[in-house]
Amino acid sequence: MSDIRRFGTSARYADVVIHNGTAHWVEVAEDPSADARTQIEQALRQIDATLESIGSNRTRLLTVVVHLADLADAAILNEVWDAWVPPGHPPTRACVQSGLSGTYRVEMIITAAAP
Amino acid sequence: MSDIRRFGTSARYADVVIHNGTAHWVEVAEDPSADARTQIEQALRQIDATLESIGSNRTRLLTVVVHLADLADAAILNEVWDAWVPPGHPPTRACVQSGLSGTYRVEMIITAAAP
Amino acid sequence: MSDIRRFGTSARYADVVIHNGTAHWVEVAEDPSADARTQIEQALRQIDATLESIGSNRTRLLTVVVHLADLADAAILNEVWDAWVPPGHPPTRACVQSGLSGTYRVEMIITAAAP
Repeated sequence: MSDIRRFGTSARYADVVIHNGTAHWVEVAEDPSADARTQIEQALRQIDATLESIGSNRTRLLTVVVHLADLADAAILNEVWDAWVPPGHPPTRACVQSGLSGTYRVEMIITAAAP
Repeated sequence: MSDIRRFGTSARYADVVIHNGTAHWVEVAEDPSADARTQIEQALRQIDATLESIGSNRTRLLTVVVHLADLADAAILNEVWDAWVPPGHPPTRACVQSGLSGTYRVEMIITAAAP
Repeated sequence: MSDIRRFGTSARYADVVIHNGTAHWVEVAEDPSADARTQIEQALRQIDATLESIGSNRTRLLTVVVHLADLADAAILNEVWDAWVPPGHPPTRACVQSGLSGTYRVEMIITAAAP
């Protein structure tokens, strides 16, 4: 059926799934050996790239659930995040501490409006 | 674009985002110094208030993901929750233990149908 | 209002909620005394059963968030998961470690397109 669009599919998951005008995806930093700040910056840049790839943009974000490996990084998250969120168009945000694979410091679950 | 409605926006997040007839939001208790029972009761009352503010109500909840700081509070959650859920109209519910900021005992991620 | 369909409702939650063409639900293994592999296999079989019950199927999955009680089980998850995902139609997937009730080893939060 053509009403579900999947991008970047592997045997394990799709990078992005779009259905009913909403895009769903997950981001972890491309370099898990980097420190928390760098991983958070990378994840947000990757969100921008994903948004652009689907013809959307940062003002169209709906929800972000942030999983931090260590809540001690929340202050760094907030600093980087607040500078990144477009004024007047923030998504909802949850932030919790969860166990993450290997040396990952952040995993984000995102939804955005998609054309 | 006008198809996304955001309420209670700050530089960090929106209190509620509505898109395609679905409202998304996150609740933590207004008083994080309160005990678990009080925080859970507060969070559910705040869900009611949010629902009312968007012209929805408790029977229109779709999903709730409950993050407890300590699963030992699950019995309290269930007692308060079961009395709150409208008979015949429960949402789906997941409940896991996650690290939460400061003295927060509960964080809920909610979706509901919105007019 | 008839635009929300709920299946398997109890005083605490619905097994499945469908709204706007999207089904939402949560799966834990029916036998929490089983080992991690068995619980993961059970949860995936239960997803198939839920999909069938709503007239959907595995190729219509949108998102799965996997909560593992122990990330040491991630290799088992990936092995079982990769064999289960329909080629060309994977959902997005997040996987984090969270505290789960009792002896549960896995809890999955799922969305799928529904007729």
